[in-house]
Amino acid sequence: MHIESTIMGMARAARSASRQIATSSSDTKNAALLKIAEKLTQNEAFIQNENTKDLILAKEKGLSIAMIDRLTITEATIRSMIQGLQEVVQLPDPVGSTSASWKRPNQLTISKMRIPLGVIGIIYESRPNVTIDAAGLCLKAGNAVILRGGSEAIHSNRALAKTIHEALSETGLPKEIVQVVPIPDREAVTWLLQQEECIDLIIPRGGESLIRFVVENSKIPVLKHYKGVCHVFVDDGADLAMAEKICFNSKVQRPGVCNAMETLLVHKNIVSDFLPMMGERFINAGVEIRGCPETCRILPQAKPATEKDWSEEYLDLILAVRVVEDIHAALEHIRQYGSSHTEAIVTQNYSRAQQFLKEADSSVVLVNASTRFNDGGQLGLGAEIGISTSKLHAFGPMGVEELTTTKFIVLGEGQIRE
Amino acid sequence: MHIESTIMGMARAARSASRQIATSSSDTKNAALLKIAEKLTQNEAFIQNENTKDLILAKEKGLSIAMIDRLTITEATIRSMIQGLQEVVQLPDPVGSTSASWKRPNQLTISKMRIPLGVIGIIYESRPNVTIDAAGLCLKAGNAVILRGGSEAIHSNRALAKTIHEALSETGLPKEIVQVVPIPDREAVTWLLQQEECIDLIIPRGGESLIRFVVENSKIPVLKHYKGVCHVFVDDGADLAMAEKICFNSKVQRPGVCNAMETLLVHKNIVSDFLPMMGERFINAGVEIRGCPETCRILPQAKPATEKDWSEEYLDLILAVRVVEDIHAALEHIRQYGSSHTEAIVTQNYSRAQQFLKEADSSVVLVNASTRFNDGGQLGLGAEIGISTSKLHAFGPMGVEELTTTKFIVLGEGQIRE
Repeated sequence: MHIESTIMGMARAARSASRQIATSSSDTKNAALLKIAEKLTQNEAFIQNENTKDLILAKEKGLSIAMIDRLTITEATIRSMIQGLQEVVQLPDPVGSTSASWKRPNQLTISKMRIPLGVIGIIYESRPNVTIDAAGLCLKAGNAVILRGGSEAIHSNRALAKTIHEALSETGLPKEIVQVVPIPDREAVTWLLQQEECIDLIIPRGGESLIRFVVENSKIPVLKHYKGVCHVFVDDGADLAMAEKICFNSKVQRPGVCNAMETLLVHKNIVSDFLPMMGERFINAGVEIRGCPETCRILPQAKPATEKDWSEEYLDLILAVRVVEDIHAALEHIRQYGSSHTEAIVTQNYSRAQQFLKEADSSVVLVNASTRFNDGGQLGLGAEIGISTSKLHAFGPMGVEELTTTKFIVLGEGQIRE
Repeated sequence: MHIESTIMGMARAARSASRQIATSSSDTKNAALLKIAEKLTQNEAFIQNENTKDLILAKEKGLSIAMIDRLTITEATIRSMIQGLQEVVQLPDPVGSTSASWKRPNQLTISKMRIPLGVIGIIYESRPNVTIDAAGLCLKAGNAVILRGGSEAIHSNRALAKTIHEALSETGLPKEIVQVVPIPDREAVTWLLQQEECIDLIIPRGGESLIRFVVENSKIPVLKHYKGVCHVFVDDGADLAMAEKICFNSKVQRPGVCNAMETLLVHKNIVSDFLPMMGERFINAGVEIRGCPETCRILPQAKPATEKDWSEEYLDLILAVRVVEDIHAALEHIRQYGSSHTEAIVTQNYSRAQQFLKEADSSVVLVNASTRFNDGGQLGLGAEIGISTSKLHAFGPMGVEELTTTKFIVLGEGQIRE
């Protein structure tokens, strides 16, 4: 009961505060963002102190080194938060812009005006930098936000929330525009997901089990992606030097992220020209190859792939490789095992490039470029709050504009419906 | 178990068929739509026969005359289905169009290509014409659709499904593009709402309890509107003749629909000039007025409104009327009691028109025009599948374009990420 009423109170306060931020000028919003950056510098010692409390508890609980690493707020973390906020200030403010208008036969003028979504709930795991990044993007788009970070980061997130509140208050904005859920119990998440009257959108960021929990329990629309099983298809007649460069970059440049390649598909006609050289480069870089029988025949170092490998998101230096008959077989493989995230073709053939662009049913489809470009910054949207593989509302990287919606505006001179 | 496996089978078949309709040409899709129209004429006697079975059962069950009326398929109903299909043929095909592209500093070219959503589930109540209208719009947008009409219309919907299947098969398209759930049990709906791997969007159409059931039980994104509590605010200095015409049209032209006015807000300065004449016209038209104390003082025929009246969707010749201090009070009333559907202001003041357009947080906001224009056809979107008051994906009337999404297309020349 106590948790329920706390969460309901936060949701109502967010709805109410959202009205003020929705109609705030770009100047006010940018001033608030810069003030948060300033306060982060001022409060650096305090934030690191609070972070240390989380780190001590994390070590006591025996969290993995990787998790502790993601939890740690260093001076560099704070500098990067500040830089992120400064970048968001530079982005154009989408709110209030109207689309080209059209006129109806009865002379009504119709257009669409871009407006904030309202209140956004973000549910995430241990990285406290999400607190600042997400708050910044939501605020720029004119939304109030409720942040629910991992329980292991609760001291850090409270310290960051306090920093944000000081900044909002000095800018003359209500502090309820950015709220951090102060309750570590998972029950708080369950209640948050019921507040459909006051929250317009939930964005979960974390592992698949967190996301599934949110989808199963939410009455509020959820923007999500479960995983990125990204493919590169090297076509017959591809520029093989280019293919090598793109495949290597897609797999090795940063293997632990969702837009890294997990499965390489190779046209059967180029296997003997391409795979030995490509395989050697991967193996020299420490990549473990799990291949179809044809791959294993050509690359003796490859392990045989099992059925499970084709749908695996390794997030590691492991790559599944399959030789395919042609582009149809490649597209069929992607349909069967893909995750609607990112697919690339390397080809010199115009028709097949077009076919791949049309038929690969993923949020970003590339011709002759690395899968690593599925990223808001790289595609020119500015900072991103996540990548959606849901097709509703936003499909692909979500920037400030994807945190808004449009309403219809109708200008009349007394028209009525006959 | 039988119901579960039937629904899962239908969902998988829809996913598979969706791939073929997604890449079908506009000509093929239009040919299928025209063929459905042709078959509706050919099968008219059969459809009416099957409809009669539903009508007999409905009378036995004692359904209301209004419900039986909505259930009845007359010659005129079939003509109107055919006309609807012909209108959908005329609409532009959104699929495959790309937005203006932009270039990144590394010369990557980015654009967004419009693509079908995939598989859409429509859950609706008794009107069998929805079966044809919804199938037509989904097909035009390149989607497969699973239709689940009311159990009282099951014979009619099966007959319409058979008609659609004949047309699809003669056009060379798989019949699984349009499927009607043949199971009357509500359990079928529950299972349908779990098929998130195969269904991309659920659109419920019907009463509030149906929609709440769908939202509570769906793992799939839902586009919905609960109700339309639409307001007209008559501002100080409004053209009162225009205001009278707009208010009368908004309330009386078709009171049973979601875009009819339910509450009239009147600026205190014009009450004595406006309300007596407006009230008389409403009362002469049989409208019951439920007013605030000031309204009741000026219009003795008005009943006193209770708190509940301000959030009521009457869908009838009943109108709540409230005198307000100014535009701020009007907007505050709308925020508190509105349903994010449709709001209109009648004003001659430029600044207040702008303020109302910005601050009224509804899917359609009008200046000097009737609320009845919140309609896909009236706004120039063509036929609509419903009006969304969810802010995600689509806010307002949803036409063919709202049944699609976009993916990012990236054209490179070997770019990799540094």
